[in-house]
Amino acid sequence: MQRDVTKQFAFTLKARDSSARLGEIATPRGAIRTPAFMPVGTAATVKAMLPETVRATGADIILANTYHLMLRPGAERIARLGGLHRFMGWDGPILTDSGGYQVMSLSKLRRIEEHGVTFQSHIDGATHLLTPERAIEVQCLLGADIRMVLDECTPFPATRDEAKSSMELSMRWAERSKEASQGMAVPGQALFGIVQGSIYPDLRGKSAEALKSIGFDGYAIGGLAVGEGQEAMLDTVAVTASVLPEDRPRYLMGVGTPQDLLEAIARGIDMFDCVMPTRSGRHCQAFTWGGKLNLRNARYADDPSPLDAESACPAAQYSRAYLHHLMKCGETLGPMLLSWANVQFYQELMAGAREAIARGNFAAYAEDVSRRYRASNGGEEE
Amino acid sequence: MQRDVTKQFAFTLKARDSSARLGEIATPRGAIRTPAFMPVGTAATVKAMLPETVRATGADIILANTYHLMLRPGAERIARLGGLHRFMGWDGPILTDSGGYQVMSLSKLRRIEEHGVTFQSHIDGATHLLTPERAIEVQCLLGADIRMVLDECTPFPATRDEAKSSMELSMRWAERSKEASQGMAVPGQALFGIVQGSIYPDLRGKSAEALKSIGFDGYAIGGLAVGEGQEAMLDTVAVTASVLPEDRPRYLMGVGTPQDLLEAIARGIDMFDCVMPTRSGRHCQAFTWGGKLNLRNARYADDPSPLDAESACPAAQYSRAYLHHLMKCGETLGPMLLSWANVQFYQELMAGAREAIARGNFAAYAEDVSRRYRASNGGEEE
Repeated sequence: MQRDVTKQFAFTLKARDSSARLGEIATPRGAIRTPAFMPVGTAATVKAMLPETVRATGADIILANTYHLMLRPGAERIARLGGLHRFMGWDGPILTDSGGYQVMSLSKLRRIEEHGVTFQSHIDGATHLLTPERAIEVQCLLGADIRMVLDECTPFPATRDEAKSSMELSMRWAERSKEASQGMAVPGQALFGIVQGSIYPDLRGKSAEALKSIGFDGYAIGGLAVGEGQEAMLDTVAVTASVLPEDRPRYLMGVGTPQDLLEAIARGIDMFDCVMPTRSGRHCQAFTWGGKLNLRNARYADDPSPLDAESACPAAQYSRAYLHHLMKCGETLGPMLLSWANVQFYQELMAGAREAIARGNFAAYAEDVSRRYRASNGGEEE
Repeated sequence: MQRDVTKQFAFTLKARDSSARLGEIATPRGAIRTPAFMPVGTAATVKAMLPETVRATGADIILANTYHLMLRPGAERIARLGGLHRFMGWDGPILTDSGGYQVMSLSKLRRIEEHGVTFQSHIDGATHLLTPERAIEVQCLLGADIRMVLDECTPFPATRDEAKSSMELSMRWAERSKEASQGMAVPGQALFGIVQGSIYPDLRGKSAEALKSIGFDGYAIGGLAVGEGQEAMLDTVAVTASVLPEDRPRYLMGVGTPQDLLEAIARGIDMFDCVMPTRSGRHCQAFTWGGKLNLRNARYADDPSPLDAESACPAAQYSRAYLHHLMKCGETLGPMLLSWANVQFYQELMAGAREAIARGNFAAYAEDVSRRYRASNGGEEE
């Protein structure tokens, strides 16, 4: 699909079921059905999957990491090669994060100042400066369809004062990101703000207000799934979503398990990304409609049943015995098939959520899936 | 494709161009166009490739390793799970080797006796006994379409006496393999003998005569590509092929480079297997119609041209810059794409050979390909 320059970025809220929302985001590179799960293509590849396979799972959009791509192969290089879509052979929408989270989680010798953050590459130790303006520039060079403002991912735990001053810095960076974006973006390229404020409801509220007054195409909730636990996370999601505009997509960053996703959808979230399906796939964990399985388990050595008879994924039709064998032998086909099956499970989970919201029975759908997962977690499958 | 029990194993010689042969092998699981290259699926997977991708490259048949599969997951287990075809999701013909070569190259504490060979597993150190009868039994349990006799792969170099006594042991084992096979095989499953004799023409001739008098469905040439050099290998191939029956397929085991294959086809060989395309793919080497490339080379970092514009392989349409990036980052998609492109190149090479033989200009075809490869080897591409 070529980029359709007549199409603008636009969110349509199509239905509601309690707080759960069914919607669609139009972009010049195609529509994104929401609730949407974005597979993570960190280094310009959704690990161990072909782009056409990612597409065939039902993914409308993928995420790529600014931090990784600016370090290797470099944003200017990707721009010279025609942009990220052409580089990696993915013609649908791409959301790029701003690099803020990875600077905190991966790099060394970070120095955060008003101007920006100085850090050492985890690859070669070279020193880099990331400012709100540079983060936007890098994302424009990549040709991202949805760009994120640079933020400071507040560590957890943080005192209220630490969380407040970190959030306020992120809000000043959000304003600079917006200004930078206005000078650089191609029409149709969206910019999302990121709500911070740790687990303090009033700070989340202030952050959301600050972002709304700047004005963004969508609003993300950042700084969660960093150790605060599911209850605090969902409380923060609920309080934040309640103050975000109705007419813009809401994106919960870096979350999570199937149950996390359903709980967050119930609280009004539209978009997700997470490495879990691909990372778990490389570590023998399979997400299925029967719950979570660990394919290393010896019980599967003689199990001729398919990985997931309820899934439409071709990868899920391979026998558990074969997948067990592949993982035990360290054969690449094992992670290939499990990553594929997991990404497709997440897409089927989102498709099910969209259908349930349209029918008005999302709560029952979420409870059914959670029941399956509670049952499998009662076993030894971790 | 289901196994067609009305079809027998049968070789049809369709055309000759000097000593090069165009043929077809009928099997209950479909036809094998010769000259044929068999991708190697050692542990019940052609590494980093889906079975349907292997098929789409043009491969009619794959090879699997008896040694690996008997150790893990075990031949009896695969039989219980419905056989190797179902286990790995490949419905075309499968040739299994006998394990003799891997016992010599991979295992430890080998003791070769008249009865068979005792060895230690390279996986867990457990002691195993492989006899001609057990090698056939394992291959029957796997459900192989073409089975190989157990042989001793004579080390190189070997004195004439060593080579003679090793070859004579292999011939006695070949006779026992044939006898064992008659009690076990399903109709339509073929058994190939293996000519040994190191680089001694008279021993090769004696070995071929011995096998012919036992009678096999096809004849392999073993014990080559073990350090003797291309000239000695090709001389041995020529002298051996000249004494093999016209009406049976001839299989050169474990060979080789594109040039090796063309030279062997010119000497009357019909079938090949080699790990080179997949192993090279994992190590950044690409076989293309423009010669051999090393994608690690920094010259490709900014090269937007496809890996191989002359190939019809989807994997070969990715840019060299992207493949360079993937390999540099250690991303699994790199080996996936290069293995695919290499296996397809080998299949395209064989398809070209078959067309050339049919047209009667095989020598020109082989010279054209060799010229491309000589040119690329003149660079730094190793």
